[in-house]
Amino acid sequence: MRTDFPRDQWYVAAYGGEVSRRLLARKICGEAIVFYRTSSGEPVALADRCVHRQYRLSASALDGDLLVCGYHGFTYDSEGTCVQVPGQRRVPRTARVKKYPVVEQDSFIWVWIGDDDAADPKDIPRAPWLASNEWTTVCGMEPLAARYGLLVDNLLDLSHETYLHGGYIGTPEVAQTPITTEVDEEHGIVFVSRHMEDVACPTFYAKSTGIEGRIDRWQDIEYRPPCLYLLHSRVAPVGVQPGADGDDSGAFHVEVVYAITPETETSTHDFWAVARDFARDDESVSAFLAENNRTVVLQDVTALNLLETVIATEPPGYQELSINIDTGGLAARRMLAAQIAAGDTTRAPATATV
Amino acid sequence: MRTDFPRDQWYVAAYGGEVSRRLLARKICGEAIVFYRTSSGEPVALADRCVHRQYRLSASALDGDLLVCGYHGFTYDSEGTCVQVPGQRRVPRTARVKKYPVVEQDSFIWVWIGDDDAADPKDIPRAPWLASNEWTTVCGMEPLAARYGLLVDNLLDLSHETYLHGGYIGTPEVAQTPITTEVDEEHGIVFVSRHMEDVACPTFYAKSTGIEGRIDRWQDIEYRPPCLYLLHSRVAPVGVQPGADGDDSGAFHVEVVYAITPETETSTHDFWAVARDFARDDESVSAFLAENNRTVVLQDVTALNLLETVIATEPPGYQELSINIDTGGLAARRMLAAQIAAGDTTRAPATATV
Amino acid sequence: MRTDFPRDQWYVAAYGGEVSRRLLARKICGEAIVFYRTSSGEPVALADRCVHRQYRLSASALDGDLLVCGYHGFTYDSEGTCVQVPGQRRVPRTARVKKYPVVEQDSFIWVWIGDDDAADPKDIPRAPWLASNEWTTVCGMEPLAARYGLLVDNLLDLSHETYLHGGYIGTPEVAQTPITTEVDEEHGIVFVSRHMEDVACPTFYAKSTGIEGRIDRWQDIEYRPPCLYLLHSRVAPVGVQPGADGDDSGAFHVEVVYAITPETETSTHDFWAVARDFARDDESVSAFLAENNRTVVLQDVTALNLLETVIATEPPGYQELSINIDTGGLAARRMLAAQIAAGDTTRAPATATV
Repeated sequence: MRTDFPRDQWYVAAYGGEVSRRLLARKICGEAIVFYRTSSGEPVALADRCVHRQYRLSASALDGDLLVCGYHGFTYDSEGTCVQVPGQRRVPRTARVKKYPVVEQDSFIWVWIGDDDAADPKDIPRAPWLASNEWTTVCGMEPLAARYGLLVDNLLDLSHETYLHGGYIGTPEVAQTPITTEVDEEHGIVFVSRHMEDVACPTFYAKSTGIEGRIDRWQDIEYRPPCLYLLHSRVAPVGVQPGADGDDSGAFHVEVVYAITPETETSTHDFWAVARDFARDDESVSAFLAENNRTVVLQDVTALNLLETVIATEPPGYQELSINIDTGGLAARRMLAAQIAAGDTTRAPATATV
Repeated sequence: MRTDFPRDQWYVAAYGGEVSRRLLARKICGEAIVFYRTSSGEPVALADRCVHRQYRLSASALDGDLLVCGYHGFTYDSEGTCVQVPGQRRVPRTARVKKYPVVEQDSFIWVWIGDDDAADPKDIPRAPWLASNEWTTVCGMEPLAARYGLLVDNLLDLSHETYLHGGYIGTPEVAQTPITTEVDEEHGIVFVSRHMEDVACPTFYAKSTGIEGRIDRWQDIEYRPPCLYLLHSRVAPVGVQPGADGDDSGAFHVEVVYAITPETETSTHDFWAVARDFARDDESVSAFLAENNRTVVLQDVTALNLLETVIATEPPGYQELSINIDTGGLAARRMLAAQIAAGDTTRAPATATV
Repeated sequence: MRTDFPRDQWYVAAYGGEVSRRLLARKICGEAIVFYRTSSGEPVALADRCVHRQYRLSASALDGDLLVCGYHGFTYDSEGTCVQVPGQRRVPRTARVKKYPVVEQDSFIWVWIGDDDAADPKDIPRAPWLASNEWTTVCGMEPLAARYGLLVDNLLDLSHETYLHGGYIGTPEVAQTPITTEVDEEHGIVFVSRHMEDVACPTFYAKSTGIEGRIDRWQDIEYRPPCLYLLHSRVAPVGVQPGADGDDSGAFHVEVVYAITPETETSTHDFWAVARDFARDDESVSAFLAENNRTVVLQDVTALNLLETVIATEPPGYQELSINIDTGGLAARRMLAAQIAAGDTTRAPATATV
């Protein structure tokens, strides 16, 4: 099956806190998966379809570490092997559901979509701030009724902050300031940087940092396709520079993390987190940033859901016009296309005819 | 038009009480039909589409025994013949809508879907308890947003009672007890039997019969594809057997009747009735059984609607795994496939190419 | 792209009062268009899709006479030319959105769908009563979830008034009285007339004119495909005739105007207006006619929405049966088919292969 998703990739499926002794159903790249934890706390991900009559295992129940199908009682262990069926002693040998590789790291549950043989946990990109004791994090996930590529476009070009998020994190200078883009083909990373000097401080940062005047503001994007997007954000009073020794304690740092996980061809799990190294115990700042960032994410969700309807209802083949601000997004698209092609190759040998 | 419905078959369209002097619209096997009774009480079924501009006749009105289209007044008699049109005296000779053969029997209105020439009321399978003075019946109909085949699967394998209907009619012994299956190819019947001895009595029977201890419990399924499903259910205190003379008055009998009528390719009219030969005048028992059985049917509806979304949204070609409990369902599928093939032959001569 | 819409035609897009300094999104013949007025009051219609990333310009904002895209700030003048982009000075020369020809006339905003070169405002059919000081008008627009052809059929055959609008504008005589139909191929007009003498006066006219007895009632339809439909309606006490000099002041005249504008293949903007030459300053008559005519339009909407579901869900190729009352509607269908064919020719030269 040809899809527009990169396969043989790790994706964020959930926050660790979402996976528990209660069954969680979530579709990742079009694949229906049921998540839960064993009694010892290990996260498990199994194909969410009973071998017998295709019932959703997520609509079932745990019996200890066994998952008992809610329709006819086919019973699976945490490896996906069926260990009991109704009305007979013998369990057919082929009775098993796919078990997905999962890794819990940086507060996320990562799941591997593709050939199990190629799954290497070392390939999972890191977002260490989220589970670090030295940072304070607020986070959430918003369902997006739009294809994931629209969210990639959105996040790779922050000039939209000026228009879509004016009054929140947008100021006129964001759209006015040119960017620099760098692509690390070897490691599969797109970098987009925008350094603004002596500019207005948006509400998002003014209220959370307490800075009263104008600021220097750096936005350093690091996107590791397909799933992990990092925005290294630095704000400081005008002129405050990092020291020669690397000390930057005069500035405020925010690590904005997005995990962009396709749900279906036209919907996306939009995970977002905001980690900070200041006012770390101030719960009013946490509440403000959680509320404010969620508002900003929902502004994007509204805009991208609208865009999805444009794409879905209007004639295809529309020729978009790109300018300098789009270099990061276009590089990301190229990398995603290459990942999709590579994932296809894995499934269809070069000698195959389609 | 090729469909997945058996044609040249009788289907339950409604309960007799649903068909009255008010027009009733119901789709049967994808065909839109309007039902009503003439002033003498005869049930009538006509194609629900005006010959003029396709308006739904069910959105119209009766004038005596004439059906007057609510859009432009084309007027039909109960044979489907147009007898009046607006603005002119002459009525075109071809102006008629299809009249469907209907039979009222055993409290149901049966309708023939297929070639009228082949319609023989003697072929209609019987469920005599429903209209018998010696039985007391409660009944209903639930709309199912799933293909009828899923309901056939469901009803032919009652081991699901243990998991989906636990606490109502399910106990662990249902799933544990093996079945015997018999297929009468000549008369087109699938029999599935499960006789349980010395087992727990589910709430459904404990409350309605008043039995306080363990029971012998027989489930004898008789399915006459495509539409009529009978579950001859017998419960009795442990060890109570029918007499040699056939007398079984020490046991309690319930005839559970389902009529499985396709509405569209992916939706079904799920008629259910429960007839009993005990506590026949006890209205609290009637109320309990009606409420309880409807709850059980809705548990099935919820599960099958979920299954329909699995089938509709996920890649086709999934290879289901079948075990002993499925022998009845698989036999039913084979018979339905044969009926579908036979119905197709009727419409497309053997020499035709498709 | 082949559609079932006549192209190279003027369509009513809105009432003049709907187009203001606030952006109005409306789809016409499947084309998404944003409407607004410049600060000098000129109506403007632009393609509702930003050249950059396809965002809906209607979800954006005006800055003086400039339209600033709400996503990344691409800025357009009222010619559709992009005059500013974010992050750089140079604006790509190809950056422009289509500007649609618009004309404000007879209280409507007309838009041209097709090749701009062929747009001639002189071709716009007139409905002068709507903006005349000598008539009083009530009007509205109802969204119709049905293809526009069903509304054309509906309006060209008023015998349906008897059945669908009985008690409002229908009486038995409408369906009983034959029509005369005339087709002006040269100017593209269908005329359908029904003159009724000594007939009951429907509520619609009894209450608004104050006539208490029976009436002569003329319905003279003039349809100019694709969009403009005029019903010249005359009611008078029985026997009151126009004078030899043309004076008809003993009668009451109502000009019922419909503009039939396709939104998508299966939905329509149903504009309706009722202009009268009597009780012109009586606001209770205005309120009565507005309420009553809207009720009648909504009766049509309900019926046509139902018809659309019949057409959408049932096998195609249904052979409708037509009678004398349909001659106007059939003539209209032929003209629309010719207009569609002509519009196609414009787009695809005869030598092209498809």
